[in-house]
Amino acid sequence: MSWKSTEKENNILAQRIGDLEKRTVRVSWISDIIVVVSPENIETMKSIVEKYGHKRVTIVKGGITRHRSIFNGLKVFAENQSSNRLLQKPEVVIIHDAVRPFVEEDILLKVVMAAKEHGAAGAIRPLVSTVIASGEDGCLDHSLERARYRASEMPQAFLFDIIYQAYQQCTDHDLDYGTECLHLALKYCKTNAKLVEGTADLWKVTYKRDLYAAESIIKDSLSQQICIITDVKEAVVQAGFLLHESLKNQVKVEAISISLSKNDSHLQNIFSGECYNFLCINDKEYATEEIQQLVDMLEKSNVPLLYPVVLILVHLNISENISFSIGLEELTKIKKFAREVKKKNILVYGLLIQYKDHFPLQETVNSAAALTMALIKDRNPELIGQLLVA
Amino acid sequence: MSWKSTEKENNILAQRIGDLEKRTVRVSWISDIIVVVSPENIETMKSIVEKYGHKRVTIVKGGITRHRSIFNGLKVFAENQSSNRLLQKPEVVIIHDAVRPFVEEDILLKVVMAAKEHGAAGAIRPLVSTVIASGEDGCLDHSLERARYRASEMPQAFLFDIIYQAYQQCTDHDLDYGTECLHLALKYCKTNAKLVEGTADLWKVTYKRDLYAAESIIKDSLSQQICIITDVKEAVVQAGFLLHESLKNQVKVEAISISLSKNDSHLQNIFSGECYNFLCINDKEYATEEIQQLVDMLEKSNVPLLYPVVLILVHLNISENISFSIGLEELTKIKKFAREVKKKNILVYGLLIQYKDHFPLQETVNSAAALTMALIKDRNPELIGQLLVA
Repeated sequence: MSWKSTEKENNILAQRIGDLEKRTVRVSWISDIIVVVSPENIETMKSIVEKYGHKRVTIVKGGITRHRSIFNGLKVFAENQSSNRLLQKPEVVIIHDAVRPFVEEDILLKVVMAAKEHGAAGAIRPLVSTVIASGEDGCLDHSLERARYRASEMPQAFLFDIIYQAYQQCTDHDLDYGTECLHLALKYCKTNAKLVEGTADLWKVTYKRDLYAAESIIKDSLSQQICIITDVKEAVVQAGFLLHESLKNQVKVEAISISLSKNDSHLQNIFSGECYNFLCINDKEYATEEIQQLVDMLEKSNVPLLYPVVLILVHLNISENISFSIGLEELTKIKKFAREVKKKNILVYGLLIQYKDHFPLQETVNSAAALTMALIKDRNPELIGQLLVA
Repeated sequence: MSWKSTEKENNILAQRIGDLEKRTVRVSWISDIIVVVSPENIETMKSIVEKYGHKRVTIVKGGITRHRSIFNGLKVFAENQSSNRLLQKPEVVIIHDAVRPFVEEDILLKVVMAAKEHGAAGAIRPLVSTVIASGEDGCLDHSLERARYRASEMPQAFLFDIIYQAYQQCTDHDLDYGTECLHLALKYCKTNAKLVEGTADLWKVTYKRDLYAAESIIKDSLSQQICIITDVKEAVVQAGFLLHESLKNQVKVEAISISLSKNDSHLQNIFSGECYNFLCINDKEYATEEIQQLVDMLEKSNVPLLYPVVLILVHLNISENISFSIGLEELTKIKKFAREVKKKNILVYGLLIQYKDHFPLQETVNSAAALTMALIKDRNPELIGQLLVA
């Protein structure tokens, strides 16, 4: 990678690996996952695997080139390694890059099915640029007709015996300078790989701009659903309903009215789902016992393990008094609470909704919805503990 | 483009075009810029050119293929068009894509110099994926040796006579199915283009993820510099100094202490520079005359024309009283003011810094700096008018 990585970028990197693992790990028909890692990153990878409790993952030390790394990975199934248990030899093996974390199960299935039939298969994409050959003088020699060629991408799948045989037979020159597994299968096993059209999801996270894009895509996928939690008081339920109405055009909304002190099974179900955003409406003070209980439930649910969870504490101000004011002491209290909860990967923000004539104005509700969307889309850790006014 | 574009995406698109124009327009040795636009976007492009007051831009209607569009663009220099004035025929012409808005002047200069010598020149990049040819059965036929080939990118430059002659001679098949200008120069004018290594900046903004990346890159470049403006009161200057110290490791800081009522020439200089972020420190109420004056000066300076300017109003609270509180009326006032100023493409946020023993704590200063960086990096229009507490 060509940039000096900052802490933020390392976080994205960890998320990227995490995201890839989540995607492949959730595919139940994959029996073993071999992660080939450069020697200096083995400890980091071990801690990631341990943190997320992955069971099917075996970590293998990479080589100095792509092909040598892949070969190392394949050997786990065929040779007795001192440090690793011998895994059962699979019929089909998928080869994939960690730099393509957004791979979908569909394409994995397609290349596996094609490999069963043809011995080898790989995802392809149309070329983005024309490919040209340059002469020795640094000038154009010829350009390729774009429509005839494709970019070879990952994932690729092989009958294990074919790709392993190819790696066993190939030369040091192949191992040191080659990049294409399909080429090895063709050259050493006469296997013409089936080419499968992949989707744009298969892009490589390579440059700094790709990390930006990856971060936005992950944030986008995290902000698809929100759960509104209210207690059972009428004014609170009312406000929850209005917010629900205003939000539902932009995001999937799940609403629930409960007494938080009860261990509600519906809420437990939401926690075990894919929801990373919670709006908790209250007419009491912040950081009360109930909020703490919600945080504890979230923590136990493992939802905030991989991605930060956003928890917006909505405070209803039903006082009609225009000279109503917010004390600095109160503000400091939210900030302190938010800083504490951030350690659990939960981002807490405050949101004040003002009532007028026993009812929040539509404009206020819309503003609250817009602020909510902005908070869950940005997931900005610097803004935690701030009280926003709708 | 493969997504349903939202308002936000259209904004990014407009910024992208604007960014490209700014980059090419700022290159003083380019005498004319021909923008070839599909018929349905001509009015949008006209309004953009008018809005930014570009003088060297001529808009030309595009054709149904890439080559036909480029040919239309070139004709402006050679044929009398009814709707356009005849421009002076250039010695060298650069051909570039609007989807590569981050092109640097350096590569433009390199391809032009190479075109003067060789007749044609184009930027190239290493291949990101292996290129393969597929047989008729959808299986791999052969793969290309990655090191021998390059991706042909833009910009490209040509002696005008060479590329124009090539377009005049080429067949309908070339015009309808070809994509590579270098190929036309080779085929019809026997000109082997000089290939010039480009940088990663030449990527194509193609997919939705690329818009995300482009947005982040633009925001990144806008948040490189901040100007701290204080009046001449001691406590205010003091706070400005502390913030300066805390910010200067992350961003270039320009600090200035003035009485805003005077038309300060130093401030005028900053406004005519590349600064898009202002921190205005005050111990008075918000939205006073002085702030309004600052906004007026910013507006007149044309800084907020292309990109949103961030203006953070820092309010120093020197009251030692812990029970100090912020009135809702006050908060509503900032919000209203911010909404008004947003129409001028200025994003206003409030930031409260609390004093203790006549001095802000280091923790408070660091928190204020972190919030400032978060605000200028995000430039979130939904959060305008909010008062954040450091």
